[in-house]
Amino acid sequence: MFAEIITIGDEILIGQIVDTNSAFIAQELNKIGISVYQVTSVQDERNHILKALNDAASRASIVLLTGGLGPTKDDITKHTLCEYLNDTLVEDPEVLRHIEALFRNYISTPISDLNRRQALVPTKAEVMHNAYGTAPGMWIKDGDTVFISMPGVPFEMQHLMQDVIIPKLVTTFKRPYIVHKTILTYGLGESAIALRIESWEERLPSFVKLAYLPNLGKVRLRLTAKGMDKEKLEQAVTSEAGKLNKLLEDIIYGEGEDGNIETVVAGLLTEKKMTLATAESFTGGKIAAMLTAIPGASAYFKGSVVSYATDAKTRVLKVPKDMILEHSVVSEQVAMVMAENVRHLMDSHFGLATTGNAGPTKGDSEADIGTVFIAVATPEEVFARKFTMGNHRTRIVQKSVHKALEMLHKEILKF
Amino acid sequence: MFAEIITIGDEILIGQIVDTNSAFIAQELNKIGISVYQVTSVQDERNHILKALNDAASRASIVLLTGGLGPTKDDITKHTLCEYLNDTLVEDPEVLRHIEALFRNYISTPISDLNRRQALVPTKAEVMHNAYGTAPGMWIKDGDTVFISMPGVPFEMQHLMQDVIIPKLVTTFKRPYIVHKTILTYGLGESAIALRIESWEERLPSFVKLAYLPNLGKVRLRLTAKGMDKEKLEQAVTSEAGKLNKLLEDIIYGEGEDGNIETVVAGLLTEKKMTLATAESFTGGKIAAMLTAIPGASAYFKGSVVSYATDAKTRVLKVPKDMILEHSVVSEQVAMVMAENVRHLMDSHFGLATTGNAGPTKGDSEADIGTVFIAVATPEEVFARKFTMGNHRTRIVQKSVHKALEMLHKEILKF
Repeated sequence: MFAEIITIGDEILIGQIVDTNSAFIAQELNKIGISVYQVTSVQDERNHILKALNDAASRASIVLLTGGLGPTKDDITKHTLCEYLNDTLVEDPEVLRHIEALFRNYISTPISDLNRRQALVPTKAEVMHNAYGTAPGMWIKDGDTVFISMPGVPFEMQHLMQDVIIPKLVTTFKRPYIVHKTILTYGLGESAIALRIESWEERLPSFVKLAYLPNLGKVRLRLTAKGMDKEKLEQAVTSEAGKLNKLLEDIIYGEGEDGNIETVVAGLLTEKKMTLATAESFTGGKIAAMLTAIPGASAYFKGSVVSYATDAKTRVLKVPKDMILEHSVVSEQVAMVMAENVRHLMDSHFGLATTGNAGPTKGDSEADIGTVFIAVATPEEVFARKFTMGNHRTRIVQKSVHKALEMLHKEILKF
Repeated sequence: MFAEIITIGDEILIGQIVDTNSAFIAQELNKIGISVYQVTSVQDERNHILKALNDAASRASIVLLTGGLGPTKDDITKHTLCEYLNDTLVEDPEVLRHIEALFRNYISTPISDLNRRQALVPTKAEVMHNAYGTAPGMWIKDGDTVFISMPGVPFEMQHLMQDVIIPKLVTTFKRPYIVHKTILTYGLGESAIALRIESWEERLPSFVKLAYLPNLGKVRLRLTAKGMDKEKLEQAVTSEAGKLNKLLEDIIYGEGEDGNIETVVAGLLTEKKMTLATAESFTGGKIAAMLTAIPGASAYFKGSVVSYATDAKTRVLKVPKDMILEHSVVSEQVAMVMAENVRHLMDSHFGLATTGNAGPTKGDSEADIGTVFIAVATPEEVFARKFTMGNHRTRIVQKSVHKALEMLHKEILKF
């Protein structure tokens, strides 16, 4: 049994927004054993939508649509879906009451007829309550196919998926089991890993698949088993993951579906009741922003001094001016003082500091673009490492943020 | 003339990565007048890729593929494309030399046969040099269709698009002109704007289209004209944008294809030679990270104190403990002191501060989840505003970051 996703909107095809909805929907479906066969992004155009509906329905039992449900003229999903199903639109009084309530409570502009028309739904549709917005979700069974239409606004769509659609799919469809395990590694490239695990990979049972998911110098390895015998799948995945753990012991830092270096670091610090402060120069607050995006950050994250200007390094972090004159702001010495001083300033167990040059120009130091120093201060020591991160601004910052968390991770493990 | 994009990879269909490539490719194509008809994401599976190639080629003159060019077994794009074209693979000596050089200079693991096989290309392919990676780009003309295959790693794909493919498309195809103008607004919702400009919108010439692009309380309005008479298109767009400017004068903060509030603020500060420092509590460094992501931030951005813990507010920002006891950390008073003190601490013209509760728990204050104070300190005054940003953690932070930049923007304009 397959699902397909159709995302609707000219703004996707002109590239003005990135379609993040498909990945979210696919993840949620995968967790309950429904595979997505294809994702198709089409224009706000009647014929194109009709063709996509037809194609998707010929391949999949569940067709999920996002977008094109707004109040304005260019939003035609509902009308087109209605036409495809030979149905007509009727006003749903409950949806109308909800729209009116939203306007009364949260929206400062007066309600218009365009807004009220969002309460129109196909007669065959089962309305799914969208607590966060004016466009309702719709579940329509047509023959053997279920069409599910959701608004394109990510947080409204996410709420509908998690709170309404997934529970309903679970009770509506009999599904095969899918068992996943994702193993997180750092420090070794995709092909070096492939080489090391080659003979193991060749002997994988046919119903277990391995995917390599490289990103920013770290590779996630995802084992997936699919079938009707849940116990057999779980045993196989556990056993294969065990073998993989032995083969890659030195480079594994965690595991888990949504696992990444920042959640692993966050989990470790929380568990050990230890705290962190960061002093960021060219990373500009990215490390702080990443960590505080995880709920519960207040348990371990004290704060950060984003000392972007050289001035801020001397004024707030008290990096000695002489040191900067002698070694430049992009130096091992400055990185170490930043880490140590932010640790004291914020009264934390660990201090993590970055200084470097991300380009496009050389800035306050003569360091080459891509030259980066990362320092870690722990309750016992402080040290810095130098890296050359290439010449691509965004990538220099991203790679450095990840490398900093990797260095910190190794230190936390010692306590 | 249409292009289509096919993104290939199981990791997209299981939702483990978000496909950001399609939006980038579409944007680049749009700039040179090539419209994307459809984006299709398919699995690393032979039949599925063959079907997608066939479908796309039946509708479009240019078919761009990303992904599936890695060195490992699950990457089958090159072989399948080769099969589709009835072609065979041959080793390209120049690509092999480049792969060997990359390994010598940047990669610590030894080169393997898997890596060397990345130098195999279809005989019909024109190789496009990928300076940043081991998988070459390929341009293959087959009948009336051009197939362009690129690696899925975003920064490698972006480099190929901008440096090789776009220039080659420009000289290869005769294209209609596309003229865009995007107008940036804040403070009014999509349907309120629609209502205000209704009669203007109805009188738009048929070759000019308007799209509403709402995001985080701000709506971008995008005018697009397409045709063969460049001058006529430009005149129409300029004239319609002028009318729109008059209708929406009070809510327009900027314009431009890639325009957003942070680039507008960055541009204004740079132009006025004024500087900014931020003091961020629950926004956790996001404002600093957003601003420093823009090249040239060192011209105006001094730094930030991310005072996540209450402790950090008193120790680094010198918020009086009595004030916190009396008013709580989430208060107008604390926000104002944070803005004013970071301004002095960092010696900047403007100080921007946030304090609030993003949930999921109440934390160090009794403030309701979603309660947020944003303060701006200018050379002349300091003030704070209170907001209720809903109950969705990520969204509370995002909306607050945008609202803070909106408030700052209004103040900068006064100098």
